[in-house]
Amino acid sequence: METGPHEHRLRVRYAETDQMGVVHHATYLVYFEESRTSLMRDRGCSYAELERRGWALPVRRVQIRYRAPAYYEEELVVRTRVGRVGNASITFESEVARPADGVSIASGWVELACVRKDALRPVPLPPELLERLSGDQEAADGPSESS
Amino acid sequence: METGPHEHRLRVRYAETDQMGVVHHATYLVYFEESRTSLMRDRGCSYAELERRGWALPVRRVQIRYRAPAYYEEELVVRTRVGRVGNASITFESEVARPADGVSIASGWVELACVRKDALRPVPLPPELLERLSGDQEAADGPSESS
Amino acid sequence: METGPHEHRLRVRYAETDQMGVVHHATYLVYFEESRTSLMRDRGCSYAELERRGWALPVRRVQIRYRAPAYYEEELVVRTRVGRVGNASITFESEVARPADGVSIASGWVELACVRKDALRPVPLPPELLERLSGDQEAADGPSESS
Amino acid sequence: METGPHEHRLRVRYAETDQMGVVHHATYLVYFEESRTSLMRDRGCSYAELERRGWALPVRRVQIRYRAPAYYEEELVVRTRVGRVGNASITFESEVARPADGVSIASGWVELACVRKDALRPVPLPPELLERLSGDQEAADGPSESS
Repeated sequence: METGPHEHRLRVRYAETDQMGVVHHATYLVYFEESRTSLMRDRGCSYAELERRGWALPVRRVQIRYRAPAYYEEELVVRTRVGRVGNASITFESEVARPADGVSIASGWVELACVRKDALRPVPLPPELLERLSGDQEAADGPSESS
Repeated sequence: METGPHEHRLRVRYAETDQMGVVHHATYLVYFEESRTSLMRDRGCSYAELERRGWALPVRRVQIRYRAPAYYEEELVVRTRVGRVGNASITFESEVARPADGVSIASGWVELACVRKDALRPVPLPPELLERLSGDQEAADGPSESS
Repeated sequence: METGPHEHRLRVRYAETDQMGVVHHATYLVYFEESRTSLMRDRGCSYAELERRGWALPVRRVQIRYRAPAYYEEELVVRTRVGRVGNASITFESEVARPADGVSIASGWVELACVRKDALRPVPLPPELLERLSGDQEAADGPSESS
Repeated sequence: METGPHEHRLRVRYAETDQMGVVHHATYLVYFEESRTSLMRDRGCSYAELERRGWALPVRRVQIRYRAPAYYEEELVVRTRVGRVGNASITFESEVARPADGVSIASGWVELACVRKDALRPVPLPPELLERLSGDQEAADGPSESS
């Protein structure tokens, strides 16, 4: 079964711009985060619920490639899919684009470790999470930059 | 003609929480800002467009009353309406509530000055803006805290 | 005994500016917070330590008056003092100024409730905190805007 | 001439934590930014001044490796040095550590393009900037992850 990436829409907030007149580069990590937790919620494994049950997915590595600026009040779409799923880690690949003209704004990946909140040591991903998220996983055995 | 406040929905982002496990108090100014620019866009006077034409509405005063915490991933509604409209200033009154249980999370007002971007000195609000926004203005002659 | 306000210096970060080319108005709540926790640390009652012992001081009300813009890379000073100390609340009054020319940028106050983290209900301030912070408390019986 | 990396000290703000109880991962891009503009200021080429003269250095690529969590109120040091200097780009390598125990918290690099603000097209770095920054440049011909 082939499924496309999860799509999440958002509108650029004024507070997210900087004096260069564009979205500040750190904001994209927040966009990625919002998009992947939206994906998780859609797949029936809400991150909020995961934390309530004692798990956490702290970020271990990120990479971003910025291609074009985004501006205040623009509507953007963040397309996210699950990349590599390891034993105790999972990678999400995201791309931010502007639907109005189809321009790709930025893309990157975020690798998350899986830990129990009381220990903060890597542990295997909960089986239920694996099952729900591994559908669109790639065959690649390392985070491939989606750029 | 009586109209209710403008409603803007949003979902709490993980990055907006702090280690107290709730939405950080400074975030509400960003929620208010997103809500009032959404109101302006709906009334046909986009703030982005206003700035492109040389105006700016810098914030002059704010007040917020926090009533209850909001949590990660919750959907919130921000209800905003125009309060006092002065000669060179305008006040927006906002309330953040949680639709799931109707609880009022926070409320407050934001007073904006009107300036020309090249001068940063207060000037009268553009007539077109006044016309489009003054519909639900209150009779009050000072910012009344909507709390 | 008369003591002046606590002074905290900081430098404006690029990420704190917005496309108006000035420090975004929500940032001042973060400056106030950094300044009052610096004051607390100096008085021997670190907020981090307070939380570790089960207390929290969530923000209940804020008011800010913005007087002049601040710009990227400028050094600012935040002067903070304890205002009203209630039974289960405490108010800090802060002013942000630019030492280079003495201009007052913004001022305001932040009222904090005192709670036990496990209950989130207002409780009396810990006696030790009261003692260390009440030195410069004002006689006023309500948060007076320091503007 | 061998020079060590530029060191910049900062203290973790409450607003920078998230509900996991640690510094939010997007904050490190702000720490890196503060550190490299501090380096530039020390070398006599303030980024604020660079922008006033019509240049800008938008971020083109970033990579971060997170090794250990950082906590509220901790003092951190960000060590930054110039990595690869290209014709129209420059890479800064940064590491965040906790001086109290010497633990490495995170490291990464940020590649900046050089543009004229009115065009937003890559142009060669200003010669004066090149001269002041190229002292500690590495021989590497690509951004090497400093992890």
